[in-house]
Amino acid sequence: MGRGIGSERELVRKLDGLGFAVLRAPASGSRTKLDRPDILAGRKGFCLALEVKTTAKSILYVEKASVAQLLRFSERFGAKAMLAVKFKHKGKGWLLLEPGKLPSTRKGYRIAFKEALKTGKSLESLVAHKLETYLQPS
Amino acid sequence: MGRGIGSERELVRKLDGLGFAVLRAPASGSRTKLDRPDILAGRKGFCLALEVKTTAKSILYVEKASVAQLLRFSERFGAKAMLAVKFKHKGKGWLLLEPGKLPSTRKGYRIAFKEALKTGKSLESLVAHKLETYLQPS
Repeated sequence: MGRGIGSERELVRKLDGLGFAVLRAPASGSRTKLDRPDILAGRKGFCLALEVKTTAKSILYVEKASVAQLLRFSERFGAKAMLAVKFKHKGKGWLLLEPGKLPSTRKGYRIAFKEALKTGKSLESLVAHKLETYLQPS
Repeated sequence: MGRGIGSERELVRKLDGLGFAVLRAPASGSRTKLDRPDILAGRKGFCLALEVKTTAKSILYVEKASVAQLLRFSERFGAKAMLAVKFKHKGKGWLLLEPGKLPSTRKGYRIAFKEALKTGKSLESLVAHKLETYLQPS
């Protein structure tokens, strides 16, 4: 489990391909005390703050503090906070999860692959949804 | 002349103090081919993409390509593009300049300290202006 720099670069390329402008945070070695996401991606004013997690297992654990700082950053910035998760051996690509909907444990959050597959969104669907919003203003 | 990592950290702290959520780009060693600003700062949906330049001299030269990629990133992201410049021996702190209003040379842009002092905005004035916009909606 971890941020997975190689996987993260692949995620950056995919977001770029979907029309997002993308900024990655510096490597964790230079992490300051300020809150920050792993990736900040924007597309015509719609802004996503992403915490990136990958695993070779079927269950992913995310620390409470990791999600809390993502939410603080996102609220301050004016961005939508999401977890971008990848179960590397499952062949399903990236899934975007809403932090507020994760099942929590005492120390943080527990994300099972099967559950993530049900509730997670693909990168592509996020853009498609946004386009619908543009086309059908309420 | 340069990005000035020490100065850049100070700028990040100041923006943080003004209520911005701030993300710095990784050090230039890991620069990819994607466009990106040195700093991305957001405050309740108002987003600033900054190219950071400092100098110990009285004139600052900025490459055309540097500004062009900042503008491309900003348009894609939906951010306001600004140059954050600091003339280190002048004791005037950071000045924010609009890329579109810079006097250009054949290779790029030439920013004289005296001119920057006239046309540049302080970090604080940017937030004050934004607050006025909130308080007096048109």
